[in-house]
Amino acid sequence: MHIAAWRHPDAPRHASMSLKHYQHAAQTAERGLFDFIFFADNLHVRNNLAPANVFSRTGYAVQLEPITLLSAIAGVTSRIGLVSTVSTSYWEPYTVARLFASLDHISDGRAGWNVVTSATAGDARNFGRDEAHEHGARYARAREFVKVVTGLWDSWDDDAFIEDKQSGIAFDPDKVHILNHRGEHFNVRGPLNVARPVQGHPVIVQAGASEAGQNLAAETAEVVFTGNYSFEAAQAFYRSLKGKLPVFGRRAEDLVIMPGLIPVVGRTEDEAKARHELLQGLIDPVVSLAVLSRILGEVDLAKHPLDGPLPDLPESNASKSGFDRTVQLAKSQGLTIRQLCQSVVTMGGHRYVWGTAKQIADELEEWFHGEAADGFNIIPPWLPGGLDDFVDLVVPELQRRGLVPTAYAGSTLREHLGLARPANTLASNAALAV
Amino acid sequence: MHIAAWRHPDAPRHASMSLKHYQHAAQTAERGLFDFIFFADNLHVRNNLAPANVFSRTGYAVQLEPITLLSAIAGVTSRIGLVSTVSTSYWEPYTVARLFASLDHISDGRAGWNVVTSATAGDARNFGRDEAHEHGARYARAREFVKVVTGLWDSWDDDAFIEDKQSGIAFDPDKVHILNHRGEHFNVRGPLNVARPVQGHPVIVQAGASEAGQNLAAETAEVVFTGNYSFEAAQAFYRSLKGKLPVFGRRAEDLVIMPGLIPVVGRTEDEAKARHELLQGLIDPVVSLAVLSRILGEVDLAKHPLDGPLPDLPESNASKSGFDRTVQLAKSQGLTIRQLCQSVVTMGGHRYVWGTAKQIADELEEWFHGEAADGFNIIPPWLPGGLDDFVDLVVPELQRRGLVPTAYAGSTLREHLGLARPANTLASNAALAV
Repeated sequence: MHIAAWRHPDAPRHASMSLKHYQHAAQTAERGLFDFIFFADNLHVRNNLAPANVFSRTGYAVQLEPITLLSAIAGVTSRIGLVSTVSTSYWEPYTVARLFASLDHISDGRAGWNVVTSATAGDARNFGRDEAHEHGARYARAREFVKVVTGLWDSWDDDAFIEDKQSGIAFDPDKVHILNHRGEHFNVRGPLNVARPVQGHPVIVQAGASEAGQNLAAETAEVVFTGNYSFEAAQAFYRSLKGKLPVFGRRAEDLVIMPGLIPVVGRTEDEAKARHELLQGLIDPVVSLAVLSRILGEVDLAKHPLDGPLPDLPESNASKSGFDRTVQLAKSQGLTIRQLCQSVVTMGGHRYVWGTAKQIADELEEWFHGEAADGFNIIPPWLPGGLDDFVDLVVPELQRRGLVPTAYAGSTLREHLGLARPANTLASNAALAV
Repeated sequence: MHIAAWRHPDAPRHASMSLKHYQHAAQTAERGLFDFIFFADNLHVRNNLAPANVFSRTGYAVQLEPITLLSAIAGVTSRIGLVSTVSTSYWEPYTVARLFASLDHISDGRAGWNVVTSATAGDARNFGRDEAHEHGARYARAREFVKVVTGLWDSWDDDAFIEDKQSGIAFDPDKVHILNHRGEHFNVRGPLNVARPVQGHPVIVQAGASEAGQNLAAETAEVVFTGNYSFEAAQAFYRSLKGKLPVFGRRAEDLVIMPGLIPVVGRTEDEAKARHELLQGLIDPVVSLAVLSRILGEVDLAKHPLDGPLPDLPESNASKSGFDRTVQLAKSQGLTIRQLCQSVVTMGGHRYVWGTAKQIADELEEWFHGEAADGFNIIPPWLPGGLDDFVDLVVPELQRRGLVPTAYAGSTLREHLGLARPANTLASNAALAV
């Protein structure tokens, strides 16, 4: 996550295109009994900053495509969940239903889908458009998309396939269901050409923080990632989202909220601080200024002193929440432009902490008991060391406190997360009629 | 491939959803030094025959999605190529470029893409349409699709990524190229967010036999599958397709032609015949009659005697080549309706032979030396035994004759096939300008 991760002495070269690199990280996470690993996704090159001589100073512009990567990781792990982002804006629901159903079979029930909408022009231009779809339209399509995908997963009953070689009956025709979805964005007949997933449905993950995003999550998500900087903001989000669940007939335990946390761990506070400062020292000031400038609406910050305060800025057409959060951060902490640059590229919208295992465990415990989190999306600042440190130092501390288990109790991602296996929503639908 | 394969005593239950089943088959094929394994694909359930009580007697209606499957196979194999069908009709080129580029990196240069167009209403109805696109429109889209995908693979020069931690230069901005494709079907800007594939381009495979299909193959394909029943027809196809290559500035050795062959092998002729008859005896007559009826345009064959000849039939709107080939087969061999049913479900459009290793090697050698084939798409009639027999009996015979190698000489699919690694077509394009 950290923008200078690729320059860390510990990071292998060409890591973002290396299967072995990620397989090793997944195995480390499984050793630490993580519920799942998660790969975010982009539909264009990452850190696509203008001009070229700034962009070319950013690492990991390319990445392995997450569905192929997770499928290749499935074979070298046995328990850890496998979650990937796939956008609802430029895919087809029949395809997405197939991919995750297949990944769920391949991994014996460990797949999860992070449902997103594509908000950037960078994505749009690779899919025939100049700009992203408007926010409301994106979410309307996403909602229908999820409905079609989950419906397709229910095409077959769990026990549809008899495969009786003697009688020649392959499946029970009463146990295959036609979705026959006809909606505003999609017409999809079904049935899916993959058997019902091991988990019934792969786990649905979301991260939208807007009102539309929260409503979609309250209706359909089982895991929600959030990016709150403070305990109080996380508590407020937690209360807000959990409060929306009864509207959709759902209970608090049907949805797991996981704030992101970027931990820099040391065996001592001095060691943690040194690791933090090593990373910060690798940040390229040209890159961080460009990132800050983009967040603030492509404002030209070069004409202001880097060691002075952030000037008053006009409203822009950049993301309003990103703009507000960044201006608020500068004001509340009295940061100079140089310090603000360092903060935004370090955090990337997530909470960042450095300290000993005890200090980090204290914070996780406070958030968990204070109803700010059901769990955490732990984001290693660099790989592999940043994850090794968490697994070797923080996980044992959390285990001593009884906050995390000492072995996997179940075998599927749903079992790890305590989520119920969904019933087949199409069981009462018309059975097969071709 | 054989329609009764799932009923074979040797076939495990639920094989079509089993990763282990296919991993084992891939390992067997690699033991036999096959250049690649290939999974066909469908965008709807297979063998979707009306009515339900016929459909429910067909095996393998569901299947693992091939991209996830091949990614999971990559980790348990090291040399064998990994080829999958992906349709140009209902995918986006940026997505397809990413998937195969990523599979190529994950497998260290073993990926291939079988380019198809989707011709069935069954596919169409899962993607918002009632019927498939018209033939010419499908091929026009496919041609542009391939152009965009191969262009995106050239987004980065092979040596673009410097990743010099000291200077902070991640890549050379002169070595990333913007595709900026604007065409009839697609507008795609690029660059791709995956580094240039290990093979430059994953291998392009095709199987279209029509005039439009052959032209597309002559322009873009590096491997072509064909489904000819006879040596003479295969020779004619070979001559026709190789003859088109100079039009596109290509040489005969730039395109490898591989007829399909379904072999039933025995240690003796009697054993081969017994294996053939075991399989044929498992064919469900209700299913085979429905398959034949569909090929002939949903004609009602039940009113004709099964042991009598095929009656004269009206032209239909089913596939003309399938109709003609089937009527021709019945007439030339004087088959009854029952015999014709057995033939069409056994062959599925491919040549089917049973015999000893020597007999099968004789045929392969004749086709190879007679310029009817550069290689063969060997289609096991059932798994795992149908492939084991070929690898254990026929491959050693071919090796004794010097027709196939005794070890993998190269490591990439291109090297196995003797295909050149393509130069970067965008190297002279405008470099990065955001």
